[in-house]
Amino acid sequence: MIVIGLDPGLQATGWGIIEADGNRLRHVANGTVRSRAADPLADRLVQLYDALEAVIAEHHPATAAVEETFVNTNPQSTLKLGQARGVVMLVAAKAGMPVAEYAARFVKKAIVGTGAADKGQIQAMIARLLPGCGTLGPDAADALAVAITHAHMARTAGAHSAARVMA
Amino acid sequence: MIVIGLDPGLQATGWGIIEADGNRLRHVANGTVRSRAADPLADRLVQLYDALEAVIAEHHPATAAVEETFVNTNPQSTLKLGQARGVVMLVAAKAGMPVAEYAARFVKKAIVGTGAADKGQIQAMIARLLPGCGTLGPDAADALAVAITHAHMARTAGAHSAARVMA
Repeated sequence: MIVIGLDPGLQATGWGIIEADGNRLRHVANGTVRSRAADPLADRLVQLYDALEAVIAEHHPATAAVEETFVNTNPQSTLKLGQARGVVMLVAAKAGMPVAEYAARFVKKAIVGTGAADKGQIQAMIARLLPGCGTLGPDAADALAVAITHAHMARTAGAHSAARVMA
Repeated sequence: MIVIGLDPGLQATGWGIIEADGNRLRHVANGTVRSRAADPLADRLVQLYDALEAVIAEHHPATAAVEETFVNTNPQSTLKLGQARGVVMLVAAKAGMPVAEYAARFVKKAIVGTGAADKGQIQAMIARLLPGCGTLGPDAADALAVAITHAHMARTAGAHSAARVMA
C-alpha cells in the first residue's frame, strides 16, 4: 500500500510517501511544497493545490493521512492553517483517496513513544525507520511520520476505521 | 460585471451573484451549498467544492469576493471555518477569477452604515438594494452583501486594489 502523509501549512506543506507491505516500510519520496508569501491568499492556495496534485499524479498513493497540528496560536494563524489544511485535504479527496486525520501528539507517540517528542527526535526516528530517506526538512519529516502512523494503524485496525482524528 | 459573493462555512456556504453596471445592481441568483455533517471532513470539503464549481460554471462570474468572518470562537471552530474558507477561495481562484476579501464588519458598514449591523438589518437592506432577490437565507444574504460591497469598491477604487482584506 502506497501512503501519502501530509503536514499542512500555508507557507510550507510537507509531504512524504511510503510503501507499506505488512510490517515492512519503504521510503518512496518526500518534499515540501511552498506558496509565495507575496501573492494573494487565493493564489497561494492554488499553488499548494497544483503542486500536491502533481505529487499525487506522479506517485499514485492509495490512501492519505493528514496531521492535525495543535492549534494554540492566535485566531488569525489558526484560520490561515485551516485554509491550507482544507486545500490539502481537498486535493487528496479529489484524487479519490480516503483521507485519515491524526492529531500531532498521537503521531509523536506512535513514532517516538511520547506525545511530547521534539522535531529532532522525530527526524532521528524517521531516519531509522526509513533508511534511504536522506536528509529531511522538518515538514517532510512530519509528513513521513503521519504516513508511517497511518500504515501502522491501517495494519492493526483496518484503514477505514482509522479514518478519523486519533487523539 | 458579474460578481459572486461568498460567505464560507463548513456546514453551509452562502453564495450570491449580482450584475453591476456602474451604479446599477441587478440580482442574478443566490443560494446556499451544504455539506453532510455525518460525512468525513475531506468528503464534506469535496461536496462544497463541487457544488460551488457548478454554480460558477452556470453563471460565469468575472470576479469573486469572500467574507472574512470574525473569529472569536474556539480554535477548533476557527480551524473548521478556515478549512471551508480555503476550499471556497480555491474554487474561485481555480476558475480564473481574482478573489477579494472583506472583513465582515467592513461589509456591514458598507451595506447598512454600521459595522455592528445584525443579520435582520443586512437582509432588509439587501432586499431594498436588490429588488427581486426574493426571500433570502442568512448565508445567502451575507454573500450578496459582500458581492455588493465588492461592486462598490471595484467601481470607486478598481477591482485589483481591493483584492485584499478591507478592515
